[in-house]
Amino acid sequence: MPNSFGTLFTITTWGESHGPGVGVVIDGCPPNLPLAVEEIQAELDRRRPGQSDIVTPRQEEDRVEFLSGVHEGRTTGTPISMLVRNADARPAAYDEMKEKFRPSHADYTYQAKFGLRDPRGGGRSSARETIGRVAAGAIAKKILTLAGAVEIRAFITRVHDIEMPVTEHFPSLAEVEATPVRCPHPETAVRMIERIKAVRGQGDSVGGVIECRVRGLPPGLGEPVFDRLEADLAKAMLSLPATKGFEVGSGFAGTRLQGSEHNDSFEMRAGRVRTTTNRSGGVQGGISNGEELVFRVAFKPTATILQAQKTVDVHGHDTELAARGRHDPCVVPRAVPIVEAMTALVLLDHWMRHAAQNQTFKF
Amino acid sequence: MPNSFGTLFTITTWGESHGPGVGVVIDGCPPNLPLAVEEIQAELDRRRPGQSDIVTPRQEEDRVEFLSGVHEGRTTGTPISMLVRNADARPAAYDEMKEKFRPSHADYTYQAKFGLRDPRGGGRSSARETIGRVAAGAIAKKILTLAGAVEIRAFITRVHDIEMPVTEHFPSLAEVEATPVRCPHPETAVRMIERIKAVRGQGDSVGGVIECRVRGLPPGLGEPVFDRLEADLAKAMLSLPATKGFEVGSGFAGTRLQGSEHNDSFEMRAGRVRTTTNRSGGVQGGISNGEELVFRVAFKPTATILQAQKTVDVHGHDTELAARGRHDPCVVPRAVPIVEAMTALVLLDHWMRHAAQNQTFKF
Amino acid sequence: MPNSFGTLFTITTWGESHGPGVGVVIDGCPPNLPLAVEEIQAELDRRRPGQSDIVTPRQEEDRVEFLSGVHEGRTTGTPISMLVRNADARPAAYDEMKEKFRPSHADYTYQAKFGLRDPRGGGRSSARETIGRVAAGAIAKKILTLAGAVEIRAFITRVHDIEMPVTEHFPSLAEVEATPVRCPHPETAVRMIERIKAVRGQGDSVGGVIECRVRGLPPGLGEPVFDRLEADLAKAMLSLPATKGFEVGSGFAGTRLQGSEHNDSFEMRAGRVRTTTNRSGGVQGGISNGEELVFRVAFKPTATILQAQKTVDVHGHDTELAARGRHDPCVVPRAVPIVEAMTALVLLDHWMRHAAQNQTFKF
Amino acid sequence: MPNSFGTLFTITTWGESHGPGVGVVIDGCPPNLPLAVEEIQAELDRRRPGQSDIVTPRQEEDRVEFLSGVHEGRTTGTPISMLVRNADARPAAYDEMKEKFRPSHADYTYQAKFGLRDPRGGGRSSARETIGRVAAGAIAKKILTLAGAVEIRAFITRVHDIEMPVTEHFPSLAEVEATPVRCPHPETAVRMIERIKAVRGQGDSVGGVIECRVRGLPPGLGEPVFDRLEADLAKAMLSLPATKGFEVGSGFAGTRLQGSEHNDSFEMRAGRVRTTTNRSGGVQGGISNGEELVFRVAFKPTATILQAQKTVDVHGHDTELAARGRHDPCVVPRAVPIVEAMTALVLLDHWMRHAAQNQTFKF
Repeated sequence: MPNSFGTLFTITTWGESHGPGVGVVIDGCPPNLPLAVEEIQAELDRRRPGQSDIVTPRQEEDRVEFLSGVHEGRTTGTPISMLVRNADARPAAYDEMKEKFRPSHADYTYQAKFGLRDPRGGGRSSARETIGRVAAGAIAKKILTLAGAVEIRAFITRVHDIEMPVTEHFPSLAEVEATPVRCPHPETAVRMIERIKAVRGQGDSVGGVIECRVRGLPPGLGEPVFDRLEADLAKAMLSLPATKGFEVGSGFAGTRLQGSEHNDSFEMRAGRVRTTTNRSGGVQGGISNGEELVFRVAFKPTATILQAQKTVDVHGHDTELAARGRHDPCVVPRAVPIVEAMTALVLLDHWMRHAAQNQTFKF
Repeated sequence: MPNSFGTLFTITTWGESHGPGVGVVIDGCPPNLPLAVEEIQAELDRRRPGQSDIVTPRQEEDRVEFLSGVHEGRTTGTPISMLVRNADARPAAYDEMKEKFRPSHADYTYQAKFGLRDPRGGGRSSARETIGRVAAGAIAKKILTLAGAVEIRAFITRVHDIEMPVTEHFPSLAEVEATPVRCPHPETAVRMIERIKAVRGQGDSVGGVIECRVRGLPPGLGEPVFDRLEADLAKAMLSLPATKGFEVGSGFAGTRLQGSEHNDSFEMRAGRVRTTTNRSGGVQGGISNGEELVFRVAFKPTATILQAQKTVDVHGHDTELAARGRHDPCVVPRAVPIVEAMTALVLLDHWMRHAAQNQTFKF
Repeated sequence: MPNSFGTLFTITTWGESHGPGVGVVIDGCPPNLPLAVEEIQAELDRRRPGQSDIVTPRQEEDRVEFLSGVHEGRTTGTPISMLVRNADARPAAYDEMKEKFRPSHADYTYQAKFGLRDPRGGGRSSARETIGRVAAGAIAKKILTLAGAVEIRAFITRVHDIEMPVTEHFPSLAEVEATPVRCPHPETAVRMIERIKAVRGQGDSVGGVIECRVRGLPPGLGEPVFDRLEADLAKAMLSLPATKGFEVGSGFAGTRLQGSEHNDSFEMRAGRVRTTTNRSGGVQGGISNGEELVFRVAFKPTATILQAQKTVDVHGHDTELAARGRHDPCVVPRAVPIVEAMTALVLLDHWMRHAAQNQTFKF
Repeated sequence: MPNSFGTLFTITTWGESHGPGVGVVIDGCPPNLPLAVEEIQAELDRRRPGQSDIVTPRQEEDRVEFLSGVHEGRTTGTPISMLVRNADARPAAYDEMKEKFRPSHADYTYQAKFGLRDPRGGGRSSARETIGRVAAGAIAKKILTLAGAVEIRAFITRVHDIEMPVTEHFPSLAEVEATPVRCPHPETAVRMIERIKAVRGQGDSVGGVIECRVRGLPPGLGEPVFDRLEADLAKAMLSLPATKGFEVGSGFAGTRLQGSEHNDSFEMRAGRVRTTTNRSGGVQGGISNGEELVFRVAFKPTATILQAQKTVDVHGHDTELAARGRHDPCVVPRAVPIVEAMTALVLLDHWMRHAAQNQTFKF
């Protein structure tokens, strides 16, 4: 099921950019959770287009509707189906894309794979698909908060070559949301916004790096071999549009240290086993160790630019293409809630798996 | 099934470092494939300990035996079970590990998760688990070669801070295997070996970076949303012991480019749709585009070092630990065949999934 | 994913009887299949309530809408989401069910499992859930017909104790649909209808047996061990509301024969390996042998009756309950298209699995 | 993964009748369970050939060995791999089967599916495959006993046309094991044994019916839609060699009752919600209701008989075949522990799934 994610708390997303709508079905949600549609909407509002002047001006309210699984304000344990109707669909704007493969987009590969494609706005490859992820992630996040005061915080550390200073500080949600660029370091945020506006003026685009930290996780989440916590997080992140890299803890930089510098010593602290440093990034042997989970995700510059580019058409002829109209010079700020959503989905799923195997029986 | 990987060509690995043995069951292997146990053995010999003077001196022949699924030299389509008995088991050497959590190892997290653990050589968290992956990967590799002349080549580009020059050249197997460090650039290889010997002399360890390239892939492998080719590769790589990062194509460095610099233009070449550059690394929208697949994996320095380290014991007391005896100063060279094996498993699985959905029926 | 079925052609159903609607998401549908919403509607019309005077008078048009996965009249290979809004919802009629557990319904077990439930019309346990199955089955059926002229025909062989004569004849769709009871033997059909009307007059209900036959299947569908064709069919059938039994080929009666009477001899016929008899029911060793697939499903009498029954309320007190209002004296006729839909889903999934493993590569 | 079963407590079986051995890998076993190899062996001894004079004389000790997952007498939470070497392999006895398809066996369908097969003793289609199931089931059974005093009891109610009287009595293990035929009604058992010996004398075979009852189950096991408890049990049973039917509770006979006769009234008993009758067989809406689980399985007469039968050879010529040598006139007695094993696997898996979704969090 290539459109499903998770093993116990499972989501299945569906929908195309310019079809009737997009949505998600959640299977395995615990029953009796108080849940209002406004809680989902709040997270969707963080990812919707048109929320600030540095992202795409596509106007979509993205109003979400519960179709099942919630009764009298509580989840029932049966599938939760959520629907967001597409509103600002402008199929006419995509006539040229029907004929020409946009460089570094999925147009050509979809055509090669399926033999046909819905060219309107990228169809299934559109980032609108992530609406279902964010909606489901809002529920996962709420459960994690109720279960263990788990806090998930993603934020931008770099846009293009503008990088915030390294910090140990766990940013508050308010600090992240203080600017539309979602970088919690105010001075850097200002420079990032300037840069994004500058490239937008050139009809060009930039990418960047998102860091995600999680605190409040118990030790024991993650599975020994293939379903290591960092493996499932890596898959979750690389399944997002425009991502090119993932690293946990010390990441690529850590490979430049020697073992004696890199190892995290254990010590007893407040009666618990703790590490003195956190180069492991909160996971050891694929399993959470109770320290802060820390990872970073690389987002390439948006493929859609307003400059003319060489390409090929569906008939196999060399040609040229210049996108017109709406244009998102940097998708990274809107990706912040998506990274949080996917993180919540991975963590909740592992929480339930861990409980099933290790807490159901006492011998 | 946390110990299984793949959806159509599925492997399940089992076994601990110092138990009776380790092994793998493959489910879904196509029938009628000519297969000799020697073909598996050849790949296992590339990962086995003691193969050179820069890796662990643990002496294991790692002789593999077919227990099922192969009849008169051909696969039958039923599960292929393979067994490697453990030989050089020295449980006594691990008495101290039974009591003390080794820093940056999985000792503490296993204990926290399961409430008990097999402390002998790390038990299930030992890299011996990867024997099953390499055995299964040998079969996947063979099928890919027969199916489409697909070539998978992993090699070391960096050890500690010693890095080979960037090259477009697709290294031959002979070039990679020319030195025990598996770096195809001879001068760099020499320096890497020196560095590894130097840190070994200090009782210390180093990590590095492996690059993997694949040529001969058809366009169309990978699924649109969660099971993107790069997502499944990221999961595969982060499921390997000691990995801390993954990047595909331009990776983290690509985030410093603008869209106009980063996009890969399409052009017709020899009657096929091709890209002029390959910052995408062979995947667009999660699906192979027929260009070379290129990704890199970060390996941290080995956690086991011979220097004294602070840690905690199972009774919750601060203490100190110094590993004794066998010691692998750099696991990266032996990880090369493992990276190739996991890559082959991901690619073959996607090949079969793609065929099932898109080539079974003609409408 | 307890609300999903299938491995390559996968469906996920969602929805409650009296919530906003019910629906299904299909993942893995082959691309390029011509598909009109009317083709789905035609199958839904065969299962909808109110279609004749011997079934429930609940009035629902059950209009289906494509939300994704179909573009310009063809499937795109991405998830097909279908929605049917609930119309004739009368929550007030269910006030009593909110307090009292209906005998032989799922009220008590849902409450016991989840700690709460949506009591309106049985919520998720309502047979309205099967709308999604029938909608998905319509697509599976079409693919099987195009792929190999596969014909799936279910029909009623018994209602209560009224049974049609045993026949070797493969009934036509017209013969089955000739009467609302869907028994292809006209004289028996008349008597069945009389019996259903008689028990309806008593406020009572009856069950019966559905037989399903499939012709045109190639040999080779089904997997050796757990996913035998008959095992997956058994699961599919026992997953339907009100089913209590399944048998394939000779079934329970076959256990009264000796091996020499029961075995199906092979013979060459028209250049193909055939059996002279078909006590196997078209499967041997879990795999189709190219003969007609034959199985039967037992449906208990509908649990909802208009007579007073002893029961217990949610507060743990003995009480009495008499259903009022709409009442379906025999659900078996409407189950015929549902049995066909589930059969189609099982067969198509195995067709794709077989192709993936055995037809993707030639060695 | 056609050779795997279960979602949280998962087994993967492998092996052929005359290959090096057969085995199973269990993934997801809870840690810290005390477990001795003798406990597995005891269950295997109940299914092994040669245990009495009414079953196959094939001599196999079927000694099981733990290869992983158990350390110092306790499970570690990692995969448990078990191996049974094949001993009494007589490949020469199967030369004729290599050329000729045995009627009502899997020879032809395997050949049709895979294009080749291991003909020795049926290869993968041999009932030796069930050794892995019984070994895994022994562990599942033990956990269920420790978790809730759950008792699973299968027994033969009919051989050919010899049937024991209907009883409400839950037979003890001693009553079942009192005779080699595993029918707890002594007089009937004697007649069954006579019948089996009589057909053996004719070189013929008989089948029969196994009933399985489970007491001690809590309400709440099973999932609403596809993974109903009876659906998973039906699949489990129809996945066994030689099975042709499954029914739960009132089964096929129940279809002859009216709703007013068939419904199980609820009543309060000893402070719990109970039913006055048990036509539901312990499941309602797919979920256990706390009553005794009751189902029956039909086994056809063994296909291997010593009489000459018409068949076809691999070259497509009509021919004749008469099995020689070892012959099992009735497999049903040895199927009793296998039915129990599969039941335990289904129940434990649902227990863990139920706990994961409904008991992990409290809101």
